[in-house]
Amino acid sequence: MSDIPENHPRALSLTYRKLIEDGVESGLVAKAGPIAHGRGEAFDYLLGEETLPCVLDDIETAAALLLEAEYPVISVNGNSAVLAPESLVSLARAIPAKLEVNVFYGRTFDREKMISDLLKSKGAEEVLGINASAKVPNLFSARQHVDKEGMAKADLVLVLLEDGDRTKALIDWGKKVISVDLNPLSRTGKDATLNICDNIVRCVPLLEKAVTELRDDKAKRSKLIQEMNNKKTCSRVLKAIVERLGKLAEEA
Amino acid sequence: MSDIPENHPRALSLTYRKLIEDGVESGLVAKAGPIAHGRGEAFDYLLGEETLPCVLDDIETAAALLLEAEYPVISVNGNSAVLAPESLVSLARAIPAKLEVNVFYGRTFDREKMISDLLKSKGAEEVLGINASAKVPNLFSARQHVDKEGMAKADLVLVLLEDGDRTKALIDWGKKVISVDLNPLSRTGKDATLNICDNIVRCVPLLEKAVTELRDDKAKRSKLIQEMNNKKTCSRVLKAIVERLGKLAEEA
Repeated sequence: MSDIPENHPRALSLTYRKLIEDGVESGLVAKAGPIAHGRGEAFDYLLGEETLPCVLDDIETAAALLLEAEYPVISVNGNSAVLAPESLVSLARAIPAKLEVNVFYGRTFDREKMISDLLKSKGAEEVLGINASAKVPNLFSARQHVDKEGMAKADLVLVLLEDGDRTKALIDWGKKVISVDLNPLSRTGKDATLNICDNIVRCVPLLEKAVTELRDDKAKRSKLIQEMNNKKTCSRVLKAIVERLGKLAEEA
Repeated sequence: MSDIPENHPRALSLTYRKLIEDGVESGLVAKAGPIAHGRGEAFDYLLGEETLPCVLDDIETAAALLLEAEYPVISVNGNSAVLAPESLVSLARAIPAKLEVNVFYGRTFDREKMISDLLKSKGAEEVLGINASAKVPNLFSARQHVDKEGMAKADLVLVLLEDGDRTKALIDWGKKVISVDLNPLSRTGKDATLNICDNIVRCVPLLEKAVTELRDDKAKRSKLIQEMNNKKTCSRVLKAIVERLGKLAEEA
C-alpha cells in the first residue's frame, strides 16, 4: 500500500486512505477514525467520487451562511486534520472563522496538541480547543468539551466528519450547524441547518472559492439563505444517488 | 465506545465495530482492516442491515455450489475471523470444507498463527495457510501465497471480504469463487462465479442452514446451479438497493 501507482483507477482514494492509516500510526487519528473513513469511502464511491451538481448549490449556500455568521467556528477532528489541513486553514482565513480542535474518541491532550500543531504548520495562527473547558449542554463524555472562545461563543459551526449526537446538541444549543457528511441517510445531515454531502477533500476548497465569490454580493447571500431548505437538500442528494445507481443497474 | 447500550438503534453494528477495533489492538486485524470494515458498514447501511430477499436465493445457490464442490476451501482473513469465528468453523464442518487463513496486508507468521488459534479455539480441527508455500499464478506480493493442501488444490473457494485482484486471479487459475462482498458495484462481486451481497455475520449462518437443507436434495442443487447467473445476481441486488433508496428519498 505504500507505493500507489499513479495510474490506479482509484489512486486518490488510496492516497487518502494512506493518510488515515499513517495518522493512526502517528497518533493524529483516533482508533475509530479508520472505520469512519471507510464508511466515507463507500458513500463517496456511490457518488462516483465526484461532487454532485446539486451539492455545488449547497456549497454556495454554506458559503453564504459562513459569511453572514457573526462568529463562525470550524470544528476539526483527527480525520479531517490529516485529510485536508491546508485547505481547512485556508478556508478559515478566507471567511474568516476560528479553527477548533475536537476529538471525541481517545481524547487526549497529546492528540489535541498534535492536531493543533499540524494546522499551525500549515499556517493557522490560532487553534482553539486545547484543554477546552466549556461544555455543550446535554452531552456527556468527551463529546461535551468545547472552547469557551470557540464553539461556546459561535453562532455557526462547520462540523466535518462528526457524529449525529453532537450536531443535534449544537442545534439544540441554538447554533447553526453546517455539516459535511457523505452518508445521504445520516442523522447528522438531517439535523444540520445545512448538510454538504461531499468528500471534505473536494468540498473545502470549493467552499473557499464560493466564499471569495460571494464576499461582495450581499444580495445573493441573502437570496441563497432565504431559499435554503435542508430537507430538500438531503432528498435531492438521495435522488441523485438513486438515479446514478439506477443507471448502473441498467448497464449491469 | 466500550459500553454499547443495548437499546442503541445500531447496537449490533457497534458491537462488530468493537470486534474490529479490538482485533487491531490484539494484532488479529491488519492496519487496513478497519477501513475495509467501515466500507462494509456503509454498504450494509444501504441494505438496511438486513439480508435482501433476492440474496437469500443467492445463498441457496452458494450452498449448492459448496456441496457439489470436490475440494471446497473457505478463505479467512483477519476481519472475517474476528467477526464470525464460530459460524465459519461451523460452516466448514457442515459442508465439509477446509479452512485456510489468508492475510494480505501485514502478513506475518504471528497474525496467521493468531487467526488459526482463534479458529481452533472455536472448534476447528485443522486450519491451513500457515507459512503457505504455494502461489497463485500472476499474483504478486503477499497476496500470492496459498496452501498447497488448501486453495492450490481447491476447485471452489469461498472468499470473505477479500480483494478483487485475488478473486480474479483465482478465477483465472480455474477455480470457482463464491465471494461475500457488500459493495454492490465491486469488481470482486462481478468477477466471482457467484457473489453474496451480505454481511458475513448474517450470511454465514444462513449458508450453513442452506447447506443442511440441500444436503439430500441433489435435484434441487443441480437446478440451482443450472440457473445461476452472477450478472443477474449483481444487477438484482443493485436494483433492490436502488428501490430501497428511492423509497427513502420519497419519504425524505
